[in-house]
Amino acid sequence: MEETGDPYTWKDLTGWKSYRMLRPGRGMYYDVKRRLPWYWSDIKDGFTYRTFAATVRMYFVNLLPALAFQLDMSRNTNGYFGINEALFASALAAVVFSTLGAQPLTIVGITGLISLFNYTIYHIAEKQHIADLYPEFIAWVSIWAAITHWIASFGNLCDYMRFITDFSSNAFGMYVGIIYMIKGVEETIDQFNSSTATAGFMSVVVALCYWATVYALEMLPVTIIFTPAIRKLLADYAYPIATIFWTGFVHINGPLKRANILKLPVTRAFYPTEPRGWLVHFWTLPVKWVFVALPIGILMTLLFYYDHNVSSLTAQAKHFPLKKPAGFHWDFFLLGCTSFIAGILGLPLPNGLVPQAPVHTDSLTEYKDKLNITHEDDHGESVERRRKDIVAEHVVEQRLSHFIMGLGIIGTMTGPLLVVLHTMPRCLFAGVFFVVGWGSIEGNGITKKILFLCSEKRFVDPAEPLLGVQKKNIILFISLQILGVGFSVAISQTIGAIGFPVIIIALIPLRWVLMPRMFTRRELAAMDALTADADVVLASLGGKPEMPEVRLERERGGLRDVDGEEAAGSSSGVSEEGKEELRKRDVEGDNEGQRIAKRGDRDLYTRA
Amino acid sequence: MEETGDPYTWKDLTGWKSYRMLRPGRGMYYDVKRRLPWYWSDIKDGFTYRTFAATVRMYFVNLLPALAFQLDMSRNTNGYFGINEALFASALAAVVFSTLGAQPLTIVGITGLISLFNYTIYHIAEKQHIADLYPEFIAWVSIWAAITHWIASFGNLCDYMRFITDFSSNAFGMYVGIIYMIKGVEETIDQFNSSTATAGFMSVVVALCYWATVYALEMLPVTIIFTPAIRKLLADYAYPIATIFWTGFVHINGPLKRANILKLPVTRAFYPTEPRGWLVHFWTLPVKWVFVALPIGILMTLLFYYDHNVSSLTAQAKHFPLKKPAGFHWDFFLLGCTSFIAGILGLPLPNGLVPQAPVHTDSLTEYKDKLNITHEDDHGESVERRRKDIVAEHVVEQRLSHFIMGLGIIGTMTGPLLVVLHTMPRCLFAGVFFVVGWGSIEGNGITKKILFLCSEKRFVDPAEPLLGVQKKNIILFISLQILGVGFSVAISQTIGAIGFPVIIIALIPLRWVLMPRMFTRRELAAMDALTADADVVLASLGGKPEMPEVRLERERGGLRDVDGEEAAGSSSGVSEEGKEELRKRDVEGDNEGQRIAKRGDRDLYTRA
Repeated sequence: MEETGDPYTWKDLTGWKSYRMLRPGRGMYYDVKRRLPWYWSDIKDGFTYRTFAATVRMYFVNLLPALAFQLDMSRNTNGYFGINEALFASALAAVVFSTLGAQPLTIVGITGLISLFNYTIYHIAEKQHIADLYPEFIAWVSIWAAITHWIASFGNLCDYMRFITDFSSNAFGMYVGIIYMIKGVEETIDQFNSSTATAGFMSVVVALCYWATVYALEMLPVTIIFTPAIRKLLADYAYPIATIFWTGFVHINGPLKRANILKLPVTRAFYPTEPRGWLVHFWTLPVKWVFVALPIGILMTLLFYYDHNVSSLTAQAKHFPLKKPAGFHWDFFLLGCTSFIAGILGLPLPNGLVPQAPVHTDSLTEYKDKLNITHEDDHGESVERRRKDIVAEHVVEQRLSHFIMGLGIIGTMTGPLLVVLHTMPRCLFAGVFFVVGWGSIEGNGITKKILFLCSEKRFVDPAEPLLGVQKKNIILFISLQILGVGFSVAISQTIGAIGFPVIIIALIPLRWVLMPRMFTRRELAAMDALTADADVVLASLGGKPEMPEVRLERERGGLRDVDGEEAAGSSSGVSEEGKEELRKRDVEGDNEGQRIAKRGDRDLYTRA
Repeated sequence: MEETGDPYTWKDLTGWKSYRMLRPGRGMYYDVKRRLPWYWSDIKDGFTYRTFAATVRMYFVNLLPALAFQLDMSRNTNGYFGINEALFASALAAVVFSTLGAQPLTIVGITGLISLFNYTIYHIAEKQHIADLYPEFIAWVSIWAAITHWIASFGNLCDYMRFITDFSSNAFGMYVGIIYMIKGVEETIDQFNSSTATAGFMSVVVALCYWATVYALEMLPVTIIFTPAIRKLLADYAYPIATIFWTGFVHINGPLKRANILKLPVTRAFYPTEPRGWLVHFWTLPVKWVFVALPIGILMTLLFYYDHNVSSLTAQAKHFPLKKPAGFHWDFFLLGCTSFIAGILGLPLPNGLVPQAPVHTDSLTEYKDKLNITHEDDHGESVERRRKDIVAEHVVEQRLSHFIMGLGIIGTMTGPLLVVLHTMPRCLFAGVFFVVGWGSIEGNGITKKILFLCSEKRFVDPAEPLLGVQKKNIILFISLQILGVGFSVAISQTIGAIGFPVIIIALIPLRWVLMPRMFTRRELAAMDALTADADVVLASLGGKPEMPEVRLERERGGLRDVDGEEAAGSSSGVSEEGKEELRKRDVEGDNEGQRIAKRGDRDLYTRA
C-alpha cells in the first residue's frame, strides 16, 4: 500500500493496532478531521453561477428518477410507497448530506435499486402471507441495515472500497443502465395495461421524444455551434427545457389531450400516502419476523456499501480536478442514520445515486473549449486543421447546490407544487429512465471494449492501450463482466432480486484473486484501473493498494523498475507521452455517460 | 463560354447558325452520337456485384416514395390515381430510360411534385365543376406538356441548364426536402382521421423508428465498426432491412396487431384503379378545356425542365468520378414521349427523381476507406493520429441496374406481389418521406451555411472559403434562397401550387443578373458554384459558361490572370492547395444528403 501523506494509514502497523475492527471510529475521526477545515469554504465557494446551474440540473436529475421509481414501487407494493414518501426521503437525504456529509458532491436520493429491493421484499411478504405486516417488517430491515452500517463505518470497512476497479464498477454501471432501460419500457407498457392503447402508443412517442430532446441538448457542448455560453446554458437546462416542453405537449387540445394519458398521481401534501401516522409502529412486529429481517438488512447494507460508495467514487472520479478531500467512513455512518430515520418513518431508504452522482460534479465543473491547431500533411502540402478540445479547468466544490436542491424538494412537497407535478405525464418518466440508463450504457467501459473489438484496427490511434492486448483476452475480460451483469439482471426479475449485491460484490475478489492468474500485468493495466486513484480520495481509504498482478510479477522477479509508477495501478501500458494521451482518454471514456464521455466515443468510432 | 473539346458548341457561331431554335435537333443529334458508342459497355460493365446492390437499393428508394406519393395523390384526387397507375408509370419510365436514355444513371419515376401538381389540378377542376372531366383534362395537360417537351428538346433549350448554380439547386433541394417532411407528417395525421387515435400514435412510433433504422444503417460506412464489407452491406440494404422489419413489427400479435393501422390499399392487378379502360378518351374533352390545359401543360414542362434536368445534374454531380458523357437534350425528348404515353393512359407523369437520383450513382460508386495518418504536436511530443478518409474510386456506369429495377417493378404489379404490398403499413411511407426529405435537408448548402453562421469561427479550418465572406453577405445570400423556398412551400399549400416552378426558375436570372451586382466575385466564388462542372456533363450543354461576376470584374479590368481557372466558375476563392481541399469538401458538402455528405457535416460541426 502506498502512502498518500495522510495520517490515516494502516501501513507499518503491527499487532492489534493493525486490526481495523479493533480501532473503531479511526476512519471516521480522520474523515472529520480532514474535511472540517474546508467547511467554511464549502459555503463561501458556492456563491457562483455554476452552483445555480448545478442546483437546477440536480433538482431535475434527482427528482424525476425518484418520482419514476416511486411509480414503480407504488405499483409493486400495493401503494405503500407514494409520492410524499419519495419526496420526504429525498429531502431528508439532501439536507443531512449537504450539511453534515464529508462528501457534499455525492447526491443521495431514491435509486432504482432500493425500489427493486423494497418491492421484492413486498413480494416475499406476500408469499409469506404477511403483506399486512409489510410496514413494520421493512422498518426492521432498515433498522438492521442502519445497525450494520454503523458497524461497518466504525469498523473502518469502507477502506476495502479502494480495491474496486473499473472491472466491477463498469459491470455495476452497465447493470444499473440496463435496469433503468427495462424500467422505462415497463413504464410505457403499463400505460397499455392501466390505460388505453392510444395512451400507450402516445406514451412511447413522448418518451422517445423526451429522450431525444435531453440527449440532443446535452450533446450541444460537443459541437461548435453557437457560443460556449449558449451551448452550456442549453445543456445545463436540458431537463427543465424538455420537461416543460413535453409536459405542455400532452396538454395540447385535440388528439393529444383526448388520449388522456396517465398523469403522476398525487395525494394530500405532507401526509403519508396510506392512512397512517408517519411513525411506523415497528415494535409491534412479532419477534420471529424481526430476526427474519436481519439477513435482509445485511443484504441492504451490502447493496448500499457498494452502491453508495461507488457513487461517491464516481462523483470524485479521476477525471475531475478535485482539491477537497473525501470521507467515506463518516458518510457511511451518516447513511446508517438516514436509513434508520427513513426506516421508522416508512420511507424508501435514500442512498448515493448511480449514475446521477457524477452528473452533479460534472455540472459543477468549469469546462473550457481549447483550440487545438495541428498541421496535416496532404500530399506534401501542410494543411491547417482546427479541433476543439474540452478541458476541465476546475470544480466548484461546495455544499450549497446540494442544500438548495434539498430545499427545492421540500418546496415541491407543498400543496401547490404537488398540483404542478400532477400535470406531468407518467411517460415522461420513461423518458427519464431512457436518458439516465442510456447514459450509463453508452459511455460504459464494457461498451467501449465491445466497440473496440468490432472496429477496424487500422484506423485506431496507436496510443490505444487495448491494441496491446490479444483479442481473445479482451473477450474473456468482458465475458466475465457480462456474466456478472447478466446474472444480476436475470436475478432482478425474480424474487431472488435482493441477492444481486452479492453477485456484484463477488466480482471484486474475482478480480483480485483469480484474474491476476488469467491475464498478464500489462493486459490488466490496459483493460482495467482502480476506480479511485486521486490522492484526495484515497486518503480516506487508507492509501492506494498495490495491484495483485503487480505483486505477483514482482514476486516472480519480472517487474522492471521503469514501470514503477505504472505498475502501481495506472491504466496505461505505454510510454510517458502515451500516458498523457491515456489520461485524456480516461476523461473521455469513463462510465458515467456524461457529455464528455459521449464526445470521446463519438470521436473514436466515427473517425472520419 | 469555354470549350470542352466537344463538337457540340455554340461558340464562334454567327448569324442564323448561332440561334438555337433555328437548328432543331442539333443537341439531340450530338447527344446520341456522343453516347451511342458507350452502349455496349453500358451493358457489359453492369455485370458486377455493385450493380446488384444498387438495383435492390433503387428498387426500394424508387418504389417506396412512389407508393407514398400515390397514397397522397389518391387521397386528393378522389381515388383516380391508384397503386396500379403508380407502378405502371414507374415501370414505363424505368424501361424506357434504362434502354433508350442517354443518362441511364438518372432514375425516372413518380415524384412528390407531380403528385402535388396532379392533385392541385384536381382541386382546380373541382372548383370549375369539371371533376368528372378530370381524366380527359389531365390527359390534355400531359399532351401539351409532351409537345412543349419536344419543342424544348429540338430547340436545344436544355443548354440553359448550364446556368444552374448551387444557389437555385440548393433552394430546390431544400424545397423538395421540406415538402417531403410535410407529406410525412400529413400521412401520419391522416391515420388519426381515417383510422383511430391508437393507429395514429402507433404510426408515429413506427414512422420515427423506420426513419432512425434507415438513417443509422446508412451512416454505418462513416464509422470504423465492423469490416468495410459488412458496413457497406448493411448500408446497401438499409431500406429492405428496415422495411421488412417494421412491416413484420406491425403484425405482431397483441396491442400492435389490435391497433390495426392502415395498410396499403391495393386493387386488381393490371387494371386501372377506377373502372375504366387504360386509354383515356381524351378526344372527348370540350375544346375550351383543351386550351385551358395548354398553360398548365407549359407549367408542367417548366417543372420537368428544372426537376428532371437537375436530377440528371445531381446524378452526375461533380463529386462522382464519371467517365461516360451526358445527354440532356435526348433525355428530355424521351421525357416528352413518356409524358405523352403516361398522359393518354391516365398515369401520373414520371420524371427524374430529386433527391433520389444521386442515390443511384452513389450506390454504384466503389468507395474505398483510406487510412490517413497524421502527427499531432502535443506539448512538444508527436502523437500519431489515424483518420479514415472515404474516397470515391470509380462509378459502375451502366444500364442494367436501372433496367432490372424496372423489371422488378413490373413484377410487383402482379397479383401475388400486390398482396405482399398490402401487408405494408401506410405509416412506413411516412418514414420513407422522413428519410428522403431529411437527406435533402441535412446535407443542403443552405443548412451548411446556417450552421456555419452559428458556429464558433475559431474552430473552423482556415481553408473554409466562407471565412472570406462577410457575415451579412452570407445572411443576404441565404435569405434570398430562403425567400424562394418559403414562397414555394407556401404556394404549394394553395391552389396556386402549379405555379411554384416559376418561382424556382426565377432564381436563375436573379442569380445571373442581380446577384453579381450585390456580391463581389470572390464572395460568390466562396458561396456558390455551377451545379454541373464536369466536362463529360457540360459537353451536352454546349460547354461551361462564364460566370457573370467574372465578366463584370473583367470588364472593370479588376481580374488578375492568376485567378483565371478559378474565375471560370470554380467555387474556390483560395490558393491551389486550398482548392484541392475545397474539392474534397465539395464531395462532403453537396446537396443530395448522401452518406458522404453526412460524414462531411458531422466532421465540420462536431469538431472534437
